[in-house]
Amino acid sequence: MKAVAEIQIIPIGSGTSVRPWVRRAQAIIAASDLVVQEHSFGTNVEGELETVFRVLREIHETLHAEGVVRLSSAIKIGTRTDKSPDLASKLRE
Amino acid sequence: MKAVAEIQIIPIGSGTSVRPWVRRAQAIIAASDLVVQEHSFGTNVEGELETVFRVLREIHETLHAEGVVRLSSAIKIGTRTDKSPDLASKLRE
Amino acid sequence: MKAVAEIQIIPIGSGTSVRPWVRRAQAIIAASDLVVQEHSFGTNVEGELETVFRVLREIHETLHAEGVVRLSSAIKIGTRTDKSPDLASKLRE
Amino acid sequence: MKAVAEIQIIPIGSGTSVRPWVRRAQAIIAASDLVVQEHSFGTNVEGELETVFRVLREIHETLHAEGVVRLSSAIKIGTRTDKSPDLASKLRE
Repeated sequence: MKAVAEIQIIPIGSGTSVRPWVRRAQAIIAASDLVVQEHSFGTNVEGELETVFRVLREIHETLHAEGVVRLSSAIKIGTRTDKSPDLASKLRE
Repeated sequence: MKAVAEIQIIPIGSGTSVRPWVRRAQAIIAASDLVVQEHSFGTNVEGELETVFRVLREIHETLHAEGVVRLSSAIKIGTRTDKSPDLASKLRE
Repeated sequence: MKAVAEIQIIPIGSGTSVRPWVRRAQAIIAASDLVVQEHSFGTNVEGELETVFRVLREIHETLHAEGVVRLSSAIKIGTRTDKSPDLASKLRE
Repeated sequence: MKAVAEIQIIPIGSGTSVRPWVRRAQAIIAASDLVVQEHSFGTNVEGELETVFRVLREIHETLHAEGVVRLSSAIKIGTRTDKSPDLASKLRE
């Protein structure tokens, strides 16, 4: 199933600068075949819902493996049956 | 990986009463082995992250199959390595 | 305008235990005349939208004044014109 | 208090195309003095927290006055005391 999604990660207890961890998550997303739109409150993606879940799991696993003790993520998912969901048309909506 | 999560679904274009669809999603969650805490803005769950993703996919697939044209979901996920994440201790935090 | 809302706060860079800050925010909410429903991913409230905003501002101001360097909050707001929005009926939806 | 925020609105029961209502909300935001960054899952803004609240209230009031029966909005707010919060630096984080 095709989906659009917004992914935001918030490492808790890893200092006030979360920059390195956000970049790490962005690199994991970039390594997938998802279409990517970065913005100041997260990363929007477009692709298979299954890929979105795989990327989310990899982000949580990787950041914990590399030292983040507590990780909170906020995800919005959009799916529809009348047409294929895509980031570009959402911008025009 | 163990996780706590909050799941909120918003059917778009299915009328102002989203009650039947929220109940349908709650039934799908209840049929899993996730620990469940329902509240007025969604359903909190505790269990395997993989199960959370499977339930989310099933909710999107089922509601579309049963007539929802457009579905938006908002998910928050919490994982941690210092102890097992659980809904009960979050209430005390 | 009456509203229902969900308020979640995430102090960033204040250690892995955010418990004291969440309690501080809950105390500020409790001191208002909003109807309150606490759960593991935030606090649901019911009342005047203006009061929700006032409480949010007070939470950000107070937590910063008491030492939180960086504060992220996630709020969901629901309003409707066909009937008065309330937490109890949302639970039945 | 300066803040960055993400504003997403979801009209419920107003059909599958929410485009006109999202545009209406964007126009209200654009008429304020907030710095604006639009993306596929909402609008990021930067400015006074008080202005963010005023804009949110105006969005809910205006959309209801113009026919939306039920309106859900999701807002993320970020404030910090170590430096002025801004959208541009968040993109680099």
